[in-house]
Amino acid sequence: MVTHGKEIGAENRLRELGIHLPTAPTPFGAYVPAVETGKLLFLSGMLPTEGHAPKFVGRLGRELDLKAGRDAAYVATLNALAVARQHLRSLDRVSRVVRLGVSLATSDEFSEHIKVADAASELLRDIFGAERISTRLIVGVASLPLGVPVALELVFEIDSEH
Amino acid sequence: MVTHGKEIGAENRLRELGIHLPTAPTPFGAYVPAVETGKLLFLSGMLPTEGHAPKFVGRLGRELDLKAGRDAAYVATLNALAVARQHLRSLDRVSRVVRLGVSLATSDEFSEHIKVADAASELLRDIFGAERISTRLIVGVASLPLGVPVALELVFEIDSEH
Amino acid sequence: MVTHGKEIGAENRLRELGIHLPTAPTPFGAYVPAVETGKLLFLSGMLPTEGHAPKFVGRLGRELDLKAGRDAAYVATLNALAVARQHLRSLDRVSRVVRLGVSLATSDEFSEHIKVADAASELLRDIFGAERISTRLIVGVASLPLGVPVALELVFEIDSEH
Repeated sequence: MVTHGKEIGAENRLRELGIHLPTAPTPFGAYVPAVETGKLLFLSGMLPTEGHAPKFVGRLGRELDLKAGRDAAYVATLNALAVARQHLRSLDRVSRVVRLGVSLATSDEFSEHIKVADAASELLRDIFGAERISTRLIVGVASLPLGVPVALELVFEIDSEH
Repeated sequence: MVTHGKEIGAENRLRELGIHLPTAPTPFGAYVPAVETGKLLFLSGMLPTEGHAPKFVGRLGRELDLKAGRDAAYVATLNALAVARQHLRSLDRVSRVVRLGVSLATSDEFSEHIKVADAASELLRDIFGAERISTRLIVGVASLPLGVPVALELVFEIDSEH
Repeated sequence: MVTHGKEIGAENRLRELGIHLPTAPTPFGAYVPAVETGKLLFLSGMLPTEGHAPKFVGRLGRELDLKAGRDAAYVATLNALAVARQHLRSLDRVSRVVRLGVSLATSDEFSEHIKVADAASELLRDIFGAERISTRLIVGVASLPLGVPVALELVFEIDSEH
């Protein structure tokens, strides 16, 4: 299946969008950032961190507003892309984003979960193309590690022939 | 492996039970309802919605009681079945329900998580047969998109020879 | 790929560490403890139970402290290992721990999620070897079934040639 998105390629799209991926985050314990099994690449929970420290701390709807939530989701997505590239060497090997899980630490009243999650979904779509967008699950959680407002779960399908 | 359940088939069971699946829910953002990879079909978080609007709003143990929670889980399961059929054309292609994740928005005191989740598990068992029942994970969450009380995560194994 | 960890084997490591696995927990509803699909083994949510009853009840940071949280995570991991062994007959068939999800019921102030999760990650590393450690996701949830403080989600890769 050769598609427009396939032809351009995720790495080219990143360049076109002027996006520079950060250094891939390193683990906070006895786990690894990514595990490849069969044609699937599972990622650890991706947080809005920078250099092993949280870049956003607080709850959506309390200390953080929608804009900060979307920014945090964007940063966590960049970290996920950095981990995937580190593991695969090139994001062009991603044939599909299978799953995006979005956990959000919110106040009791916060109701804009979908808009926050869209910041991650839209970045993934812009990079991998509309024909590779994922399933998605969103939950509002009580708390997240390091006090961050967003954690992402990602599963990629990888092209073994690449 | 030919079993009794396989012979009857999920589509026949649905008919026998007089269950009519709703129109498959459409996404609320840049994601898709289902992604097939290898022999697995991943679904997006399935909510108790009807025609793009929540059919149940509130928390279990606060605005909603056990009965409403079970009804919401049942409706979300029907939506999941509708998405799976839309993707696979026939539910008879499901060879196994691999995983059911149940996220419940509850009050602090609510303790009947298992009874709510059973409404989803029992419907899946009735349709796919006892030999195809899934693993299950239940969590009580702080909030869910659209204010619904239940979100389901489903992974199906599909029969590629069908 | 023959590695040091592979040569020793998970079952030998368990013996060396003097760890006796409990009886595998049985389901609380219409689901099964484990589903094998392709090379993956999905487990149901593993709780710190003993003989179908919770061994720890309460929230981390309220009724339970860090030590109790780590003990609960350890017990839930033993239950997961018992389920995996029951399904596979031998833990030596596990070629990789693909994913560890850790759901923690905490007070609003609790911030030691990582230390609790490490109790599970470290046990898995000690048994399967550092070259088989998993991806990891941690969330603080509002509540868990039976009132327990910890629930684990596990996906194993299994060696089909074993």
